[in-house]
Amino acid sequence: MPNVLTRLAHTIEKRKGEDEKKSYAAKLFARGPEKCAEKFGEEAVEAIIEAAKGRRKKLTEEAADVLFHLLIMLSSRGVKFEDVLAELERREGKSGIVEKAERKKK
Amino acid sequence: MPNVLTRLAHTIEKRKGEDEKKSYAAKLFARGPEKCAEKFGEEAVEAIIEAAKGRRKKLTEEAADVLFHLLIMLSSRGVKFEDVLAELERREGKSGIVEKAERKKK
Amino acid sequence: MPNVLTRLAHTIEKRKGEDEKKSYAAKLFARGPEKCAEKFGEEAVEAIIEAAKGRRKKLTEEAADVLFHLLIMLSSRGVKFEDVLAELERREGKSGIVEKAERKKK
Amino acid sequence: MPNVLTRLAHTIEKRKGEDEKKSYAAKLFARGPEKCAEKFGEEAVEAIIEAAKGRRKKLTEEAADVLFHLLIMLSSRGVKFEDVLAELERREGKSGIVEKAERKKK
Repeated sequence: MPNVLTRLAHTIEKRKGEDEKKSYAAKLFARGPEKCAEKFGEEAVEAIIEAAKGRRKKLTEEAADVLFHLLIMLSSRGVKFEDVLAELERREGKSGIVEKAERKKK
Repeated sequence: MPNVLTRLAHTIEKRKGEDEKKSYAAKLFARGPEKCAEKFGEEAVEAIIEAAKGRRKKLTEEAADVLFHLLIMLSSRGVKFEDVLAELERREGKSGIVEKAERKKK
Repeated sequence: MPNVLTRLAHTIEKRKGEDEKKSYAAKLFARGPEKCAEKFGEEAVEAIIEAAKGRRKKLTEEAADVLFHLLIMLSSRGVKFEDVLAELERREGKSGIVEKAERKKK
Repeated sequence: MPNVLTRLAHTIEKRKGEDEKKSYAAKLFARGPEKCAEKFGEEAVEAIIEAAKGRRKKLTEEAADVLFHLLIMLSSRGVKFEDVLAELERREGKSGIVEKAERKKK
């Protein structure tokens, strides 16, 4: 059974081209990929502030916002969430240090 | 079966307190939660730039980095990834517009 | 004669505690330093997007927004703009490489 | 007499095309405008964290870093700092609320 992120990615995908009055996602898509990136940035900043302050409940909520807006930003550019997960799977088993060194070489 | 993000969250959790020479995650944890938030911010900025440019392959990679560093930032503050997923589940079925309005009221 | 940034810093300082309906700065101050930091972050993201896209006119406007919101953020924490300028003066004559190395040592 | 920001903008401008081993600015220019935008983003995040924490001395230093990297980012795209100051002068005398409304209309 797919988890909530996969379901959410699927729901967001369906919002594309829908009436922008009906959903927040459709409204963002209508404003274009740069606006979607901007919104993702706003949520990232809010999460950073909560992490800096160490407020766990708010950080949990802001992290949820970050994930939601990351999915929107990806979708606005036609990037599939499953491709991002595949990228993470590709890196599994490699330490971050090795993985980063390999990418830098390219 | 847990997906890659759940596995990754679990792996990251295990890195806490490990020798910082052995893993990138342990190294970040050793530098403290603010450094983890800072690194998350750097990755968010890189993803935003790729989204603005519309480079799909790089955006996919940067989104993977964002997720990885989001998990680190959460863990550095003792926030469980499953609690963030639970927050997203709680919001399911509500439109973003309704959900945001409800939170604003509080 | 003071330049526009010094004048602006002075004007912003005067907005503190004023009726928040009368000025945008007073409205931000009323929402607290974290909100001011958040708004600065939003403007920084917008400038980054314009820089990534290479749109010079919009980048000019967004840079002006960044400066305005940097002054607000500083003022919300009681940091004087002249102290930031003094810090830049202190660094003058040192190459960025030397200066960074010196700060890292501390 | 020009203030430190104007002098700094002038110095940075001169670094363009210089040997990247000699100056930090030249090194950043050599890596391209997107790298300059990324670095500006990193410094913005660091300033946001200090503002959130309310550490005034560190905020002063990070604000200086923000200004330095803003000048680099602008210069990497051929935007003159004096044009940003001119934009701020253009807005003087208008309240932020009025100014923002006018720009939104366009």
